[in-house]
Amino acid sequence: MAGAGARVGVVGASGFGGAELLRLLARHPDVEVAIRAAAGSAGRTLGDLAPGFPPDLGGDAVLTAPDVTALGALDLVLLATPDEVSLELAPALLAAGTRVVDLSGAFRVSAAAYASWYGRPHTAPELAADGPRAAVYGLTEWAREAVASAALVANPGCYPTATLLGLRPLVALIEPEGVVISAVSGTSGAGRSARPDLQASVVLGDVVAYGAPSHRHTVEIETHLGAGAAPVAFTPHLVPVARGMLVTASAVLRAGVTPDDVAGAFTSAYADEPLVHVLPAGTFPRMKATHGSAACQLSAVVDPRTGRVLVTSAIDNLGKGAAGQAVQNANLMLGLPETSGLEALGVWP
Amino acid sequence: MAGAGARVGVVGASGFGGAELLRLLARHPDVEVAIRAAAGSAGRTLGDLAPGFPPDLGGDAVLTAPDVTALGALDLVLLATPDEVSLELAPALLAAGTRVVDLSGAFRVSAAAYASWYGRPHTAPELAADGPRAAVYGLTEWAREAVASAALVANPGCYPTATLLGLRPLVALIEPEGVVISAVSGTSGAGRSARPDLQASVVLGDVVAYGAPSHRHTVEIETHLGAGAAPVAFTPHLVPVARGMLVTASAVLRAGVTPDDVAGAFTSAYADEPLVHVLPAGTFPRMKATHGSAACQLSAVVDPRTGRVLVTSAIDNLGKGAAGQAVQNANLMLGLPETSGLEALGVWP
Amino acid sequence: MAGAGARVGVVGASGFGGAELLRLLARHPDVEVAIRAAAGSAGRTLGDLAPGFPPDLGGDAVLTAPDVTALGALDLVLLATPDEVSLELAPALLAAGTRVVDLSGAFRVSAAAYASWYGRPHTAPELAADGPRAAVYGLTEWAREAVASAALVANPGCYPTATLLGLRPLVALIEPEGVVISAVSGTSGAGRSARPDLQASVVLGDVVAYGAPSHRHTVEIETHLGAGAAPVAFTPHLVPVARGMLVTASAVLRAGVTPDDVAGAFTSAYADEPLVHVLPAGTFPRMKATHGSAACQLSAVVDPRTGRVLVTSAIDNLGKGAAGQAVQNANLMLGLPETSGLEALGVWP
Amino acid sequence: MAGAGARVGVVGASGFGGAELLRLLARHPDVEVAIRAAAGSAGRTLGDLAPGFPPDLGGDAVLTAPDVTALGALDLVLLATPDEVSLELAPALLAAGTRVVDLSGAFRVSAAAYASWYGRPHTAPELAADGPRAAVYGLTEWAREAVASAALVANPGCYPTATLLGLRPLVALIEPEGVVISAVSGTSGAGRSARPDLQASVVLGDVVAYGAPSHRHTVEIETHLGAGAAPVAFTPHLVPVARGMLVTASAVLRAGVTPDDVAGAFTSAYADEPLVHVLPAGTFPRMKATHGSAACQLSAVVDPRTGRVLVTSAIDNLGKGAAGQAVQNANLMLGLPETSGLEALGVWP
Repeated sequence: MAGAGARVGVVGASGFGGAELLRLLARHPDVEVAIRAAAGSAGRTLGDLAPGFPPDLGGDAVLTAPDVTALGALDLVLLATPDEVSLELAPALLAAGTRVVDLSGAFRVSAAAYASWYGRPHTAPELAADGPRAAVYGLTEWAREAVASAALVANPGCYPTATLLGLRPLVALIEPEGVVISAVSGTSGAGRSARPDLQASVVLGDVVAYGAPSHRHTVEIETHLGAGAAPVAFTPHLVPVARGMLVTASAVLRAGVTPDDVAGAFTSAYADEPLVHVLPAGTFPRMKATHGSAACQLSAVVDPRTGRVLVTSAIDNLGKGAAGQAVQNANLMLGLPETSGLEALGVWP
Repeated sequence: MAGAGARVGVVGASGFGGAELLRLLARHPDVEVAIRAAAGSAGRTLGDLAPGFPPDLGGDAVLTAPDVTALGALDLVLLATPDEVSLELAPALLAAGTRVVDLSGAFRVSAAAYASWYGRPHTAPELAADGPRAAVYGLTEWAREAVASAALVANPGCYPTATLLGLRPLVALIEPEGVVISAVSGTSGAGRSARPDLQASVVLGDVVAYGAPSHRHTVEIETHLGAGAAPVAFTPHLVPVARGMLVTASAVLRAGVTPDDVAGAFTSAYADEPLVHVLPAGTFPRMKATHGSAACQLSAVVDPRTGRVLVTSAIDNLGKGAAGQAVQNANLMLGLPETSGLEALGVWP
Repeated sequence: MAGAGARVGVVGASGFGGAELLRLLARHPDVEVAIRAAAGSAGRTLGDLAPGFPPDLGGDAVLTAPDVTALGALDLVLLATPDEVSLELAPALLAAGTRVVDLSGAFRVSAAAYASWYGRPHTAPELAADGPRAAVYGLTEWAREAVASAALVANPGCYPTATLLGLRPLVALIEPEGVVISAVSGTSGAGRSARPDLQASVVLGDVVAYGAPSHRHTVEIETHLGAGAAPVAFTPHLVPVARGMLVTASAVLRAGVTPDDVAGAFTSAYADEPLVHVLPAGTFPRMKATHGSAACQLSAVVDPRTGRVLVTSAIDNLGKGAAGQAVQNANLMLGLPETSGLEALGVWP
Repeated sequence: MAGAGARVGVVGASGFGGAELLRLLARHPDVEVAIRAAAGSAGRTLGDLAPGFPPDLGGDAVLTAPDVTALGALDLVLLATPDEVSLELAPALLAAGTRVVDLSGAFRVSAAAYASWYGRPHTAPELAADGPRAAVYGLTEWAREAVASAALVANPGCYPTATLLGLRPLVALIEPEGVVISAVSGTSGAGRSARPDLQASVVLGDVVAYGAPSHRHTVEIETHLGAGAAPVAFTPHLVPVARGMLVTASAVLRAGVTPDDVAGAFTSAYADEPLVHVLPAGTFPRMKATHGSAACQLSAVVDPRTGRVLVTSAIDNLGKGAAGQAVQNANLMLGLPETSGLEALGVWP
């Protein structure tokens, strides 16, 4: 497929995030996937785990056990691994001389916040968000230059991606207090392990909140919402959809802020962005419009009665919410066109 | 079916709400459905419109055009009609001497609020929520005595039912300002007309917000949340489920309110209620647990970081959110056991 | 709930079939559930496993380990257990003096067929379909008298129930050779274990065949289709629905058989049946019309071009396909009205 | 996007098939979409009708009324129009000097078969399947050379595509009589008109057969299955999925045919095909593996008990079943690489 481009590795190829990375990279014109690793599924073929891969496009590829030496020789490694695994692999890979995009939560917040919200000590605090060699938080549209030169990118979580793309343009216009976020996610965001609460029989026809008020993405949102951020109320829900995420965020507008100010903030932030599309006020994003793509759809509407702004933001949780943004970041790190391999439009309907 | 019980009529039998009324009443031990009317479907059989009715349980019944004289001779009439139709029929039926449960939005708010939020004048203002012969707002658990003696009950909307059941116990514990409500509904809540945005191809795999910040149920919630209520932020969403509703409400706790205070308020309100079930804090209601039933599941959890309480509330939008509560109210009006005909448990999974 | 009626036990209360038995029996006017047993979930409450049960209607009931002595003292025991467990429990319970409805595949076919299709020897061959004390195959509409007096009823499988209700009336009109059956099932038919292929992320948006041509229900269909049955081609599929089953069966009509003959055969078989509803030719059953109920919808249409008859048959796989039919059979065995506890109409839409 | 490549037009851009053509062509490296026409939606933007299009990739394009002169100046026109419209437009466009891929049923069967199965006379019989200037039936893998030089390609229907890809390799191995086909389709196959039976509330949680035994695709399958084809029994069903199609076909094997013969026939037919993937016997295709792609997954398994072969075949009904195959055919006609613009892998999960 790929020509004499960059050589990358994917670890965690047996999960949904890893499979999505490989789906995107299978058609990437400038990147060659040299290693497909998965600790628990070494020896199995990718096609056996993810039925959409034709034999010649990765389906016949046999997954290997992660090998730091081999991975370290590549231009870049994408880690679609649990955060405990990333905490071990990322430092080792950096030491081995490669660069890393980590899709886990390991390096997105401070070591103290990690310990508090993840319930275990951070074992590589120098790479945590407040460490001396801190990972770059890869919300691409807001961190392009830093990403391009980063050794380690902490790829944002799905909920934080959709939330921050929606709220970051408004930080100067809203009160820090009073941010309330409700969000829904397709089930693939919960990963591939066969949990009883993720069974189709349980999920079909149902919607349920979970994790609130202590979901780990809460602190990630607070960390990256900007200076002076106050605690936010964040409630995620599971919906009967395999892919897709919709964030509904409400914030108190500062006195005197007008609908035009809000619209202008979004225009300033995203008018030229290829992957972030702002819809007119009163039009709401449809998450299926981003299905399979790396795009985000956003809109905002001001409610004069409550003095609040309502921001809704839709992504594919495996796209802009995970693998799509990871490829976007990898492209920047490798000096490639930012949307290379990410051209596909959302599959609608 | 029914013995020598009360004789009732259902108008709007061709819609989802009307069909659900007839499904419940088909097995009601003390009520006989004497008239099944539907202006636009007169002459068709119920079974033709709603495939779950066996011939002998309503499937063979031919729908009739609504006739005020015939309906007026019954003990009670349930109107599952658009609000414009209810505005005409309800006064006429009351004048004809029968009692009415109206499932539309016609009589839930003041005449002025109706004019403002529904975009047309209220043509029977004496029956509006602030009129001299105001309809009783039939949130049953909070209005039993008034419902029992009412001539006209305004059956609450689906979103207000789930929201108010969750927030009413907390009114003394929360600040009036800062209530933010996000909710999801199955598509049957949008009714039976063949709208492009309700097509299966569009809805499947998608979630989308709509109507915010000016959805009509907003003012209904504010009207019935209690004295001193401030404007609330309310954002409804459509999810790919035929039935079911989940409301996620966030409110600022007053200083000094503890989790025990919150739990105690729910216990006081609902400990003995047959249809409202409070789950332990940290357990979230599943809307499918109420599928096909008239039950509501609730829970609340306090977030000390934000000083907010999170209330989640699940109903079947056609059950406690429409026809189930209407039958509950009709039972009270007819002097029957309140849950008669509503015994079925939710169909889970 | 129940008065001084029959006392029954349910074993396997933690599975979907067991929970559905308990859902139906919670409102059964003439039956008291004295024991709720589940080997693997003893000590847990029913409400913890099945969120639709209010506390006072079974939700607070603590499941117990199955105890043959205690169960043996009851009027009847319903086994919603794996066939290996039923092979042990059923003989023991019969020896202890109670009667049994078994929902597993243990006693539906001959011992030899069991050994061949289930891959292990039948350890209670005297109770197999060809044994001296053979279980009665409980396809209720075709075995009422035998069921009423049976010590052990083998409750039919879901696919065989829908298929046989559709084909049994036609046995004299079709050629034995050439029966081709395609069917779809909701995921609850596959049970509650957390299998990777039953994860919501995998099931949503997909349809897949499985088990063909050696699914165990194939031999059950052949065994009970009637004298002279030839092998049938049977292909089941999984669809993204929690409940529901639709069987599409095609058979070659014997020479000279007319559409009227076909329609007449169905009328003869089912005109007075409360739970089997035959739709006009050209109208197709909707499986959702049977959702949560014990009903079956059927229709047949003759294709003169191919000389075949197409029969489609819809049930709820947990209703008429499992727990609903089990309660129907238990009612007969206990001398109760056949549809007692089964009155609820299908929850549509 | 496209460089100095071929200039094409799409008529019917407001339907699902037309939108899918434009989604694929938006990223086609060698084709420029010069005209996007839709008779009923002229003046609206594509993005207004299909929310996945970013403004600069077609979202801002204003649809025009179809104009034969303008279309006739293009290299090729794709008609995603109703067959009545195609019957008018195709001859006119051919006369105007352009080439046409027609996605409707207008030119797939003989004029007589059209009249009989579509219920109206064929108004351009010279282009029908038996006409002197017959359209080439564009089942690409079986008609490459003819497609490449065709003036008019009749793009196959979705059900026939999946069915014929599965059965064509076996024509010499099966008996003509006794072919029984059951199939399921996502709702997008039924098009975009807001029909009551395609409402989400009706479709969600349900599966229903329709159209049998006289669905129009029956005669299309028979026409193109090969010499000596007998009538086939074909039953389509609607499933609660927006996209995707699975065909389950059963045929009687000729005496002496072995599983190896069957496997060999598939290998011969498809070993080198980029878009048709044959799975091992016993593995069943998953339709979601083809989601958004132009691929087909197939497998076959022999049942020695019935002497039948079971073939299952999965496609995206809008992909290989419509727009994907149309682009594949257009590529051949324009001398482009056959899979140009069709590289995307299926979006799974």
